[in-house]
Amino acid sequence: MEKLELLYEGKAKKVYATSDPEKYIVSYKDSATAFNGEKKGEIIGKGEVNNLMSNIIFQLLAKEGIKTHFISELNERETLVRAVSIVPLEVIVRNVAAGSFSKRFGVAEGIELKQPTLEFCLKDDALGDPMINTSQILALSLATPRELERIAYIATRVNEVLSNYFDTINVKLIDFKIEVGRTNNGEIILADEISPDTCRLWDKETGKKLDKDRFRQNLGEVEEAYQEMLNRVSKF
Amino acid sequence: MEKLELLYEGKAKKVYATSDPEKYIVSYKDSATAFNGEKKGEIIGKGEVNNLMSNIIFQLLAKEGIKTHFISELNERETLVRAVSIVPLEVIVRNVAAGSFSKRFGVAEGIELKQPTLEFCLKDDALGDPMINTSQILALSLATPRELERIAYIATRVNEVLSNYFDTINVKLIDFKIEVGRTNNGEIILADEISPDTCRLWDKETGKKLDKDRFRQNLGEVEEAYQEMLNRVSKF
Repeated sequence: MEKLELLYEGKAKKVYATSDPEKYIVSYKDSATAFNGEKKGEIIGKGEVNNLMSNIIFQLLAKEGIKTHFISELNERETLVRAVSIVPLEVIVRNVAAGSFSKRFGVAEGIELKQPTLEFCLKDDALGDPMINTSQILALSLATPRELERIAYIATRVNEVLSNYFDTINVKLIDFKIEVGRTNNGEIILADEISPDTCRLWDKETGKKLDKDRFRQNLGEVEEAYQEMLNRVSKF
Repeated sequence: MEKLELLYEGKAKKVYATSDPEKYIVSYKDSATAFNGEKKGEIIGKGEVNNLMSNIIFQLLAKEGIKTHFISELNERETLVRAVSIVPLEVIVRNVAAGSFSKRFGVAEGIELKQPTLEFCLKDDALGDPMINTSQILALSLATPRELERIAYIATRVNEVLSNYFDTINVKLIDFKIEVGRTNNGEIILADEISPDTCRLWDKETGKKLDKDRFRQNLGEVEEAYQEMLNRVSKF
């Protein structure tokens, strides 16, 4: 399968058309951004880690009955996926307070939440990806009530499966962001990626951050943390 | 009934204890603030308008079966109310895009929403009253699931009753903010105020703003707009 027209270039990935209108090729970049693009940099090898790790995770989720866009890995940076139209929402699940949640609500990082939270942000760089609630999503026709129910179900299931899975490789899943897409027949499936770019992952024993917060917060050993996560996931 | 200890002083009201622990006295001020306290000023006569108008509205809502903290008007600026502990949430209902909704989501002011939205903000000046969703409210134990259901029901009913009522006095209810309190026996009832400070109210024919946006946006005729709303409500 060959890459044809470049359909979309985001901060961390490019998406190409193929000769099959039902299939796209995703190509992962090493570029890293944070704080809505204010901080920019490169994490050497990130593209490979995120591609390989996402594919392992997507296959794990598929086994658990969660449909994803993954079809097959083409090479270390590129993957064949189902063509979907991305729903313009970031779907965020949190188990422990951290990041923007801690800042916004004045809750110290590391505080275990009484129950997982599910939040949506409107994917719109110019507006700074503002948080949006379900009544606002419906009022702006960004998704249907049925789609929202489906998205909430997928987010909850992904959290259950991944929290358990990461636990077996000695990692605590603090929070994560997923994106979903509509297939040609209108089904909502998991898309985008699941990687240290989109999850907060803390070593269960030491609390060491093994995710993009090392880049955001200039903690050093950024490449090593990504590689460490890929190693733990691969060994599984 | 006499004012005893000052229990709380907000931007627009003071709340006093009385000799009856089940009753407070609310005293309305002329002070006006906007944009989380960045803009400050005074609207002459606002205290009276907001007190008298809120009391008319609360009695109207009571007739429609919505319990409120209103007991009796003491004078033009002061009202006897049931003692409640305020739930630290601003409860906002919107019928038409305006204000922070328009800014946050890039939707032009005046666009009729496909359905009313219900949003919550955490009442916390230091944090800038951030928007918070129901899963976050539950995770932070700010309200119980049953309380949240009750609050959503009250907000929806207030919107129905007031949209119809304002229509009869030639006013379009664009959006409004309410606050609710817990009584001593744990019941959730409507508290705070319903006034041109807490509603967006547009003349149905001319679209003229008859609310605090005249102050926020330096539109002039601020006092006149408040007085006009009181006149329309009083005549009813």
